[in-house]
Amino acid sequence: MPSQQHNRLAALRAALAQHGLDGFLVPRADEHLGEYVPESAERLAFLTGFTGSAGLAIVLADRAAVWSDGRYTLQLEQQTDGALWERLHLVEQKPEAWLKTHAAGRRIGYDPLLISADGLARFAGSDMVAVESNPLDEIWIDRPAPPMGQAVPQPDFCSGETSAAKRARLAASLREAKQDAAILSDPASLAWLFNIRGTDVEFTPIALGYALLFADGTASLFMAGEKLPAETRAHLGNEVTLAERSALPAALAALEQKTVRYDPATQPVWFKTTLAAAGATISEGADPVALPRATKNHVEQNGARAAHLRDGVAMVRFLAWAAETLPLGSETEMSTAARLLAERTQEQHFRGESFPAISGAGEHGAVIHYRVTPESNRPIRPNELYLIDSGGQYLDGTTDITRTLWTGPGAAPAPLRAHVTRVLAGHIALAMLVFPEGVAGPHLDAFARQALWQAGLDYDHGTGHGVGAYLSVHEGPAAISRAAKPVPLQPGMILSDEPGFYLNGAYGIRMENLLLVQEAVFPGASKKFFRFETLTLAPFDRALIDPALLEPAALAWLNAYHARVREALSPHLTGQPAVQEWLGRATATI
Amino acid sequence: MPSQQHNRLAALRAALAQHGLDGFLVPRADEHLGEYVPESAERLAFLTGFTGSAGLAIVLADRAAVWSDGRYTLQLEQQTDGALWERLHLVEQKPEAWLKTHAAGRRIGYDPLLISADGLARFAGSDMVAVESNPLDEIWIDRPAPPMGQAVPQPDFCSGETSAAKRARLAASLREAKQDAAILSDPASLAWLFNIRGTDVEFTPIALGYALLFADGTASLFMAGEKLPAETRAHLGNEVTLAERSALPAALAALEQKTVRYDPATQPVWFKTTLAAAGATISEGADPVALPRATKNHVEQNGARAAHLRDGVAMVRFLAWAAETLPLGSETEMSTAARLLAERTQEQHFRGESFPAISGAGEHGAVIHYRVTPESNRPIRPNELYLIDSGGQYLDGTTDITRTLWTGPGAAPAPLRAHVTRVLAGHIALAMLVFPEGVAGPHLDAFARQALWQAGLDYDHGTGHGVGAYLSVHEGPAAISRAAKPVPLQPGMILSDEPGFYLNGAYGIRMENLLLVQEAVFPGASKKFFRFETLTLAPFDRALIDPALLEPAALAWLNAYHARVREALSPHLTGQPAVQEWLGRATATI
Repeated sequence: MPSQQHNRLAALRAALAQHGLDGFLVPRADEHLGEYVPESAERLAFLTGFTGSAGLAIVLADRAAVWSDGRYTLQLEQQTDGALWERLHLVEQKPEAWLKTHAAGRRIGYDPLLISADGLARFAGSDMVAVESNPLDEIWIDRPAPPMGQAVPQPDFCSGETSAAKRARLAASLREAKQDAAILSDPASLAWLFNIRGTDVEFTPIALGYALLFADGTASLFMAGEKLPAETRAHLGNEVTLAERSALPAALAALEQKTVRYDPATQPVWFKTTLAAAGATISEGADPVALPRATKNHVEQNGARAAHLRDGVAMVRFLAWAAETLPLGSETEMSTAARLLAERTQEQHFRGESFPAISGAGEHGAVIHYRVTPESNRPIRPNELYLIDSGGQYLDGTTDITRTLWTGPGAAPAPLRAHVTRVLAGHIALAMLVFPEGVAGPHLDAFARQALWQAGLDYDHGTGHGVGAYLSVHEGPAAISRAAKPVPLQPGMILSDEPGFYLNGAYGIRMENLLLVQEAVFPGASKKFFRFETLTLAPFDRALIDPALLEPAALAWLNAYHARVREALSPHLTGQPAVQEWLGRATATI
Repeated sequence: MPSQQHNRLAALRAALAQHGLDGFLVPRADEHLGEYVPESAERLAFLTGFTGSAGLAIVLADRAAVWSDGRYTLQLEQQTDGALWERLHLVEQKPEAWLKTHAAGRRIGYDPLLISADGLARFAGSDMVAVESNPLDEIWIDRPAPPMGQAVPQPDFCSGETSAAKRARLAASLREAKQDAAILSDPASLAWLFNIRGTDVEFTPIALGYALLFADGTASLFMAGEKLPAETRAHLGNEVTLAERSALPAALAALEQKTVRYDPATQPVWFKTTLAAAGATISEGADPVALPRATKNHVEQNGARAAHLRDGVAMVRFLAWAAETLPLGSETEMSTAARLLAERTQEQHFRGESFPAISGAGEHGAVIHYRVTPESNRPIRPNELYLIDSGGQYLDGTTDITRTLWTGPGAAPAPLRAHVTRVLAGHIALAMLVFPEGVAGPHLDAFARQALWQAGLDYDHGTGHGVGAYLSVHEGPAAISRAAKPVPLQPGMILSDEPGFYLNGAYGIRMENLLLVQEAVFPGASKKFFRFETLTLAPFDRALIDPALLEPAALAWLNAYHARVREALSPHLTGQPAVQEWLGRATATI
């Protein structure tokens, strides 16, 4: 009997023939090109079986291939059928090259809502044809309905700036750039601009939709009416016109002879071609919300501090429990992650995890994006490393923290402590930096690695990503990575500081706090300087630290940080003397 | 009586009218777009009187302007006539904007040999017209003849690779890129590729000329025959065709239907337009010599070590003399620089300075590119800072060193020592780095600044530039600067490490050594790592160092460096017990 995947692939090929296409592109993307996509947009998983968060398939009449990156090599092999699919690596066997080799001169369809202009440009060497309706959707009979989560107002006491004020400020920048309107296709941009939050996807509190922002400060919001309760409609006010998604083409057609800002890196190419066909002038530029959203105002900064305080209280209860429990060997990766979630759930304003927790014992810790499943779940054993990378969404802020623990009860071996201490030295070196205006993440990434590099060690991921304010835990445009665009760091940006070290098959180490960029005041200085305020409040496991390997300034930082953690959290643990006592031991001066 | 500059400007305007031009561009550049230009190419100085090393003039019928950068603001005002010229800042009042404002729709001439394709592209908004003969040269009656210095072979025991081997290696890379030939217009590229050195310009041992390198490893060298003695002709061999400069157009015309590599960033746009007119296909890419030239082979590395040893011996004799003499207040900036040159002149293989020494006492030290003149020359006084940045050209290597000295006899004030020690801490932080393959200068620049940044201080120049092997003291393509292109550092590259701090009107501090990139061997490492070997051998002035402000690792580096300096130089100072004794004191453990 032919498999389900076989049938689906055959059905798609039949649909392509009907569309007059020789092939079709199926990216892992929704119509907003976001990180977390609703089930209704899991086309790649429907077609191929592959459920990873990065990938692409290309179907030709006589062959088909599916791509992902190094994180998912094994999963791709396991979830897809080698008889149907070539399984390839996105970087080492580029799809555009594969297409040139196997489909020269053939008409390859793509859904212009599922790829950006920059993404499409990669395939410039092939004959790419935009489809009006997605052939895959035609054969996806039992496709889930799009999510219809309620969009609720984000109160001003959390956002710190009314939507009207935000729109006025962005409208002024549009006028200055001589632009009449801007496309907004990232739901996180809508959430920030309109001060709304939703529940359409996991982990990120967004409501899927599109918007047009006009140079007079008004806007049109294209979102299913059933997602907008009366309270939200009242909150949006009468300067925001509400319309269904189906009204969008007409709205774009009305922009004839207008100049419209479009972001080729993050917005579906459909907007560009539709605007061009309407006779609008396209002005390419970054999503105008991206930078204002990244630079949190003082209310958002205070919200982040408050959320991190509660998250720290939950973390410390969890860590005290882990210190007592993990040496017994009675817990698993899943039960331990569940315990942490349970601790967070007790905290005020907690809304859910900000991403799927990475809970990896021993060799699983070395899998950088490990996601524990019932199949992979394993006991956490005495005397090994355990890595837990997790975060919470709170009404007033988003958290993301990684701690690496020695389960005990024995002492951690010296070589392991040396590795951990080098990672920690890198974490501290970045956290201690002071830098002038204009400096960007790529200029600072090496500080987090230098202690590892001195020993011929490194880690194969960036050092830090932006974090939203009760929004996406992975937020642009700034990042601390040599590969990132050099976006100058600015006060109010929240970035992770997460160096690591991974010994395949043995263990993984990662040390992550969130940092908030602040002005550093030097009387008489000739330029502006910035520094980092550490938001995250939780001790690093002293069983893994070799103080002899830290420079005095780094050790002083660590002791001051631990003292601050203790002073901040202790008052919130008064009913739990055992936890408080553990916290005192965990943060004592080294 | 009208001034000479007035007459020259009037004559140029008359010549422009005859050429049917409304304006003309006069960059400070020769036909090789190099840093040091021969007198015969000092057109900007001839026309405007301005002799700085960076600048541009634009002449219209009714107005004229001359630009330079912040280093030369004062000099520009002093040397040019405000009645004839608007004096403008290259960055703050961009020439292209000025041209759009004052010459919209007018025909502006330029000499295509004096500007690169990238440089010309800046003026894309104006109607730019290439001239066949330079109107300024027509009115420059007493123009000096082009230099006719002899080009001599650079011996294999210095270059470490024969020209034939170099040409074969580069030809292979041309074939791989499917290029039939490459343009070479940088005389330093000719010098490296053909293993020749010349005397056409000050400070850099180059012979001006052009070359074509072909994909079969042969080449054509376009250089005045009188510059090539029989020995050099024999050295070049019969795979290198010699021709006069006048034969170049015909040689380019013969490249019809060939694919030719052209560097739009560093080569005159004349090559591009001439090749296009000839029917050649232009393949844009960096000068193929730039990267191989920057990565010195083992013979060149040993040459650099030997040159730095001799330079260190001269420096230490100079420093011992300065320690005794400067407290007396009897010397001047010029006499002290002359003394250092005299010390270098005693050393074997010394060929001259590698750039005009910067010899600045007190407030002159704060002028980053200060060049002492008889007018600016002043006594070096007791109890002040004295900065000397200088270098030598030796047959086997190029040096560049800056030391900042406290003249004494009193003790240096604590705030000054703090500034110096922060600069030194930055110097050491960079020198100590270990980093993997792929890391580039912009990723490391911040290490040299962090100690200053921690106090709200900074310096407004890059941290490091590449240095040639008995070639240019400023050599691309790699640099340690946030503004530089991220060219990955590779073993064999020589870069300066020269953080500074400048208090306008008071003093300047700079600490410069040259560093050689070396492989750092870590058994079992999963990638290649590199480290720096310090080439420069001379003590830093301990009177200015506050050891309490250095981390233990930095202090250990300093003491190990001083011990190495002492051990390397002492054997070469056996006839000079006083110098040897001074060196012992200057390098004693702190």
